[in-house]
Amino acid sequence: MDRIVECVPNYSTGRDPGLLERIAGCFRGKEGVKLLDYTSDVDHNRSVVTVVGEPLSIKKAVLESVKVALDSIDMRQHTGAHPRMGAVDVIPFIPIKGVSVEEAIALSREVGQAVGELGIPVYLYEKSATRPDRENLANIRKGQFEGLKEKMAKEGWESDFGPKSPHETFGAVVIGARMPLVAFNVNLGTSDIKVADEIARKVRHIGGGLRFVKAMGVSLTERKQVQVSMNLTDFSKTSIYSALENVRFEARRYGVSVVGTEIVGLVPLKALSDSLEYYMGLENFSADQILETRLME
Amino acid sequence: MDRIVECVPNYSTGRDPGLLERIAGCFRGKEGVKLLDYTSDVDHNRSVVTVVGEPLSIKKAVLESVKVALDSIDMRQHTGAHPRMGAVDVIPFIPIKGVSVEEAIALSREVGQAVGELGIPVYLYEKSATRPDRENLANIRKGQFEGLKEKMAKEGWESDFGPKSPHETFGAVVIGARMPLVAFNVNLGTSDIKVADEIARKVRHIGGGLRFVKAMGVSLTERKQVQVSMNLTDFSKTSIYSALENVRFEARRYGVSVVGTEIVGLVPLKALSDSLEYYMGLENFSADQILETRLME
Repeated sequence: MDRIVECVPNYSTGRDPGLLERIAGCFRGKEGVKLLDYTSDVDHNRSVVTVVGEPLSIKKAVLESVKVALDSIDMRQHTGAHPRMGAVDVIPFIPIKGVSVEEAIALSREVGQAVGELGIPVYLYEKSATRPDRENLANIRKGQFEGLKEKMAKEGWESDFGPKSPHETFGAVVIGARMPLVAFNVNLGTSDIKVADEIARKVRHIGGGLRFVKAMGVSLTERKQVQVSMNLTDFSKTSIYSALENVRFEARRYGVSVVGTEIVGLVPLKALSDSLEYYMGLENFSADQILETRLME
Repeated sequence: MDRIVECVPNYSTGRDPGLLERIAGCFRGKEGVKLLDYTSDVDHNRSVVTVVGEPLSIKKAVLESVKVALDSIDMRQHTGAHPRMGAVDVIPFIPIKGVSVEEAIALSREVGQAVGELGIPVYLYEKSATRPDRENLANIRKGQFEGLKEKMAKEGWESDFGPKSPHETFGAVVIGARMPLVAFNVNLGTSDIKVADEIARKVRHIGGGLRFVKAMGVSLTERKQVQVSMNLTDFSKTSIYSALENVRFEARRYGVSVVGTEIVGLVPLKALSDSLEYYMGLENFSADQILETRLME
């Protein structure tokens, strides 16, 4: 596959394995689509599918899954610990390979239009947002399914696609393009949580730190260490090595060392090769030189 | 593909594009086989094919190419700058993914037996060698095609498979399993070639340095720098970072810094992730966490 997007749709069902299988079936074994993972959370009453593939194939498969949710989920009966406003709650598109952010935005708009034509209101978020107060998912979802009718009637909250009031059983869905998240943790040679908290405060964006870093301190009780736990929300602009070196020099003022690091979950190759180039002083390195990337072509 | 070997067969033809296409055709579009590259050198009168795939599919394709060479190349008419002893001169098998060295050795022996049954003498080399003086390709090939009849009659030089004297038109072929080579260069902040030569001498195996490093000094005239140019012959035992750090500390005695590094050609992901783990202090990192590797499964 030359062009790959990732899609991580969230469905408001977590207690019905049969329905989850029908949703997963929209992605499984389809040409140009690779189902990487799907999981349910019973407390959240929510399922998350992780899928990658060619933009058009992904579009077809995700629309099929929206129809399954439309036919099977009644949000009026839905309870769960996780905030939600629709039977499919959010559909992020993430550019992975050979796809620009602009193309991912265009894809999200095409899917949004098609979902709108099913009679479901659509809000565009993140990079696809049509206004600044729609960039943040939590902001759009505030009030949840139960408050949706009232919210949509307010000025400034008309949908981007589809009807101007909620679908009776589905609610509404949030769709958009975003960059891949990288979950990156740095372990420190101290058990003092205040040190991790202070460093987290300095390196994260809201504290005056790096533009695309969210961070918090975490105690690793068994290891008797603390951790600066970070989310890098755009690794193409804020690199992993940059986050690490910022934590390292902040830690120095407490006489504390970095004792280890951790990447949680999936990470795009580019995020790693970028840091490898930095630490090794690599010149003119291209991901095409990695044997495994040649096998994917 | 769960199990991947690389194969880099060398053919004694470099001036016949039609024949090269017929050889490449043995690999192109075959189930379980991916043709990565093929090139000819007119001076060497030699072609090199780079192919990856499932062991059994690779075996079938490479045997087909041996038959094409057997039918088309007459070594009695062959001249070229590169040493050679057969129409297919050498067939290395390199374990890439989900394949152990032992399995690559077994594969090389199976191919060797099948080639032997075509009436072609086979010598096993590198990890597949049946005796220490056959590990080194140059040692087996010494005397070349022209000296083969005499060499094979000598004690200690009977073939591992096939007839005990050369094939009249084909000669003989060398087959075996070896680790992937990593070509890794370190640029130094000096134009004094003696510094690069001295460092190369210290870091390479024959000089008392790292077990799987070959190294030499090279002048980068335009850049007014010198380079320690290295081949890592088993990166699973001698890591890239280890080669780099050895060059760095040797350079220190000349007051010289490392100003850049370079990886030439293809490199297996594991060779890179190993160095990334070292420089970033990554714990419990697995190549399965790289999004792109999940796309290959």
